[in-house]
Parts: sequence; C-alpha cells; structure tokens
Amino acid sequence: MRVVITGGTGMLGKKLAAAILKKGSLVGRDGKAHEVKKLVLFDIAQTEGIPDDPRVEVRLGEVDDVATVAMLIGPDTGAIFHLAGVVSAGAERDFDLGYRVNLDGTRVVLEAARRLPQPVKLVFASSLAAYGGDLPVPLPDDFRVTPQTSYGAQKVMGELLVADYARKGFVDARALRLPTIVVRPGKPNLAASTFASSIIREPLAGERAVCPVDPGSWMPLLSPRRCVEAFIRAHDLPDTAWGWNRTLLLPSLDLTVRDMADGLRRVAGQKAYDLIDWKIDPMIAKIVAGWPARMAAKRALTMGFAADVSIDEIINNYIEDDMPRR
Amino acid sequence: MRVVITGGTGMLGKKLAAAILKKGSLVGRDGKAHEVKKLVLFDIAQTEGIPDDPRVEVRLGEVDDVATVAMLIGPDTGAIFHLAGVVSAGAERDFDLGYRVNLDGTRVVLEAARRLPQPVKLVFASSLAAYGGDLPVPLPDDFRVTPQTSYGAQKVMGELLVADYARKGFVDARALRLPTIVVRPGKPNLAASTFASSIIREPLAGERAVCPVDPGSWMPLLSPRRCVEAFIRAHDLPDTAWGWNRTLLLPSLDLTVRDMADGLRRVAGQKAYDLIDWKIDPMIAKIVAGWPARMAAKRALTMGFAADVSIDEIINNYIEDDMPRR
Repeated sequence: MRVVITGGTGMLGKKLAAAILKKGSLVGRDGKAHEVKKLVLFDIAQTEGIPDDPRVEVRLGEVDDVATVAMLIGPDTGAIFHLAGVVSAGAERDFDLGYRVNLDGTRVVLEAARRLPQPVKLVFASSLAAYGGDLPVPLPDDFRVTPQTSYGAQKVMGELLVADYARKGFVDARALRLPTIVVRPGKPNLAASTFASSIIREPLAGERAVCPVDPGSWMPLLSPRRCVEAFIRAHDLPDTAWGWNRTLLLPSLDLTVRDMADGLRRVAGQKAYDLIDWKIDPMIAKIVAGWPARMAAKRALTMGFAADVSIDEIINNYIEDDMPRR
Repeated sequence: MRVVITGGTGMLGKKLAAAILKKGSLVGRDGKAHEVKKLVLFDIAQTEGIPDDPRVEVRLGEVDDVATVAMLIGPDTGAIFHLAGVVSAGAERDFDLGYRVNLDGTRVVLEAARRLPQPVKLVFASSLAAYGGDLPVPLPDDFRVTPQTSYGAQKVMGELLVADYARKGFVDARALRLPTIVVRPGKPNLAASTFASSIIREPLAGERAVCPVDPGSWMPLLSPRRCVEAFIRAHDLPDTAWGWNRTLLLPSLDLTVRDMADGLRRVAGQKAYDLIDWKIDPMIAKIVAGWPARMAAKRALTMGFAADVSIDEIINNYIEDDMPRR
C-alpha cells in the first residue's frame, strides 16, 4: 500500500508518518491490514526530523496544483491523510492564499482521489475553528458551525466536500475536528493558541513564558500522540462506522490554564511553575474567550476515540517524544 | 442605484424584479432609500414574463465566468441578489456542473462585489437542503448543517463564503435559507418537491395531479410573494441587524400535505380536491421524509421576517399573481 500525507513535513505529518511506519500497515476498505510499502510526505518545504526509513519519500509542491497532485496521488495510492493547510493566522492575513490552499487545495486532493480506479480512504484534518459566535458550554458535537475566521470557514467547506465526495461514493473520506494541540514541540508561532504549548514547553527548558489569558480560561486539549492515534483510527474504521456523518469532533481534555500550570508544577516542580509570567494580553484573551471552552464529543467516544487522561500524561509524553535532550 | 439579480430570468428572479420596480428604491448601506435606476437580470437564458420596464436590462452569460461577472457587477452597482444556481436534482445528476455553478459561481460573484469601490449589500439564496441526516422536530435554527445532497453542500459553502466576506468587510452579504416555495407557477420540474406545487396548481387548472407522499407528511412552505418580501427585507436591514451571523432560516408555514389539500378544497371546492390522486411513490416519499419537517425560525421572527398566514392565503395569492387566465 502506498500512503500519501499532505502537509507531511509538518509537525503532525511527521509524527503520523512515524506512527504509520512503526505500525507497518493500515486497514483497507476490504477490512484487511495492508502493509505500507511506500509513504509519501508531500509539502511545500523540507523540514528537519523526517523519519529515516527506506519507505519514506518526500515530495515538494503546491497542494492546489492539479498536475502535481494528480501525480502524487497515483493509481497505486491506498490511503490519503490530507493535513496540508495555511494556518489560522496565515489565512487571516492573506485571504486569497487561504482560499487557494485550504479550499482549492482540498478540492484538488479530493478530485485526484476521485480519479483513482477504486475508492480510497482519506482522512481530513479540520479544526475547532469550525465553531464560533455564541457558543453553549459545554458545546454539543451537533451544534451549528459558524466560523469566525477564514481558516474556520475553509475547514468547514473542506468537511462539506469530504461528506459530499463520500456520499457520492467517490472517496471514502472522513474529517476530524482537532482540539488545541498541546504540547507542540519547537518554537512559538503566530497562532493565538501558541501560549498553550509555550507555558509548558519553555519552563521545561528552563525558559520564561508568558500566559496572556486569565488562569480560569478553559482550553480543549489534545496531545500530538493522541491526535496521531485518532488519524489512524479515523482511517482504519470501516465506512459503516461513519455512515452519512463524515465529520467528527475529537474528544478533548478540557482544562483551565491554571490546571495546566498546576500539572507542570507536579511534573517539573515549583521552579518550572515560577517561570510562567501571568500577564494578560487583552487581544489574545479576547480571541481565546471566543473559542469553544468545554466540549461534549459524544459521538467520538462511542466510536472509540479517546481524550488524553491528564495534563501530567500530556507533559510526560512531550518530555519522552519531543523534548530536546540537554 | 444599479441593481443586479443573478438567476434574474428565473421564477423568483422575475418576481423579485417586479417587486423592486414597484417599490422603486432600496435601502443602501447609509440607511437611506436609493432610487433604482437600472435593474440587470443576469441568467443563462431568456424567459417569458420579464417585467416590461425601461429600467430593466437582461444579460445572458455564465455565472462562473470571471470576465462576464466583473462587467455585470460594474462600479455603479448598489445591490446584488445572487439567486443563480443549478437546482437540487441538476446538481445531483451532474456533480461537476453543480460545483462549477453553485460554488465557483458564488465565489466569482462575491469576488466581483469585493472589487467594488465600496462595500455593497448582497443577498444570497440558500436552502433548507442545508439540513439533513437525523433531524429533531421541530428543527431549531441553530442546528448543525449536514446536507445530504451536493446542492445542499454547495449552498452551505455559499453561506460560509457570504459570512466570511461580510466578516472581512469585503461585501455586506446576507444569506437566506428558503423553505419549499409553494405555489410555483408553470409546469412540474424534476425536483422531488415539485408535487407540493402540482397538487394545488394542476387541480386549480382542472387537471389531475399525483400526491406521491403520505397525507400526513409535513412540508415547510413559503409563498413566492413572501419569499420576495424576505429578499427585500434581507437587503434593506442594516448590517447591525445581521451582526456576525449572516445566515438566516426563513420562517415557514409548516403544514401536512393533508392540510394543503384541505385548503385547496376550501378555496376551490370538492371538485378541485378530487383531482388529487393519492398514490405513494416510495422513492419520493423517502426523499421527503429526510427533509426538515417543522421549523423553529426564532431569529428570523425577531428580525421581522414573516411566514405565510394560511394555505388559503397562499392559494389565493397564486390565483391572483400567477394563475393563467382562461
């Protein structure tokens, strides 16, 4: 089986690749495990930390380029994970780029998959940014989607395409709404949510980090490890498990920022905890206040998807998987 | 003020044109009434019954043609009603055509509007086809949208674009989810809902009509007259009345098919009623059973949109507005 991951050189793409390589197989539409013989990581740029494995091939190109993607998703493709996308802040800054990559790119990928000799499973990464406006607490997973960012709008359009291509029998596609991924390795980025990783990652490295929101602010969290597990489960489940509803809100561990900091203190001690500077940034606090706070992902739980157990576990997994050794 | 109606030679386009011409003005973004000096009906084909008025101009072309639409929506455009679209059965039969007209066409119209020197009001016609799958009765207007047709998926994508262009300040756009329009003048078409008009229209003309669903089946109805009123109200309301939520489920008169037939008997007598043949078509009955049955369009009511008062009124309006004189 040939597996394609778009956005494959990104943080989640590389972790997903490593997990698929370790597992060695994915469940096909026939319900049987198929050996992964080729794993193609497609992205716009090479990055560090690509799994060193003879099955891996990195291909660079634009996801909305029809010819490139048609070649990428060749006739022997058995599974597609479509993670490529312009992130939230990027799509907000460059409206046209966001639509080109996040909407047109998703259409190009689905069209290429539709041309395959037989339907293929495809997993699409959507986001909590689908929700917005006035939201109930907790948020039921069947609540309307009224995104308040271009990124969110584009992700919901992707979900609609996924559902429609699946319904027509063109592509056996499934979409996952991802909670806030914590702890992201590496450096802070421009996302408003970047602090949620920073307040754990930086103190663990002995560096100071600013928490720009009230300690009582709720965050729906998912660790990279659980997220990768969810991608693989979303793929391996039979299409009957999905039925007509092809979009799934993933279960999150919903904690306040205070809970997160307390977890850091338990795992890494008071010294690490004291490296957090509590200094509210009104702009970021306002954005975060508009996000869904506590989630009721009932359907995902019945489908066997699991949230992280505790912030302590999330932090320990980060230390084990990602923390730079000194 | 120059007004553009896409889908302008269609049934609702022509009725909307006639109503705007009669009213003579529309409310601009400055809150003032602006005289309608030019009314451009854009569509793919000429039809009968275009309002005979010197202000009217018919232009033919494809709505997804960038150059054509850029010329159509010239710098003096003050209002846009975007009704053009491939209907439900058409989009289901021709997947690519549906996406080209209903999704790409809407993007092209919004992009042309975005290029105008100042933001313009735009009203987009969406549909109850946005809803699907397992639906509660009554259906609250903040329920999730999980369309079960390509047409529905494309309409929801249009709603998302409308909201995003509005949020960015590019186009002062608003979307209306239309209930089943009854009584449509003319001939039956391929839509599964066509019987809802036929069982009234044909008996009034002394012809037989088949009702293919159970008499107890619920239908959310809106008359063409109320629909046109809603388009104009949706346009004339200030953007503050819309806020961040740019999609509105219109109030419907929710009746069973039996209620509709009883109304026909009250208005046109037992002889007309007896022209209805009650003969269930399992395929159509199944499609109709998947539609939202009774609606709770709370927000629209608070914004002053009104449902029809009775089926008797709907039938009498049809007789007055549309019924061919013998």
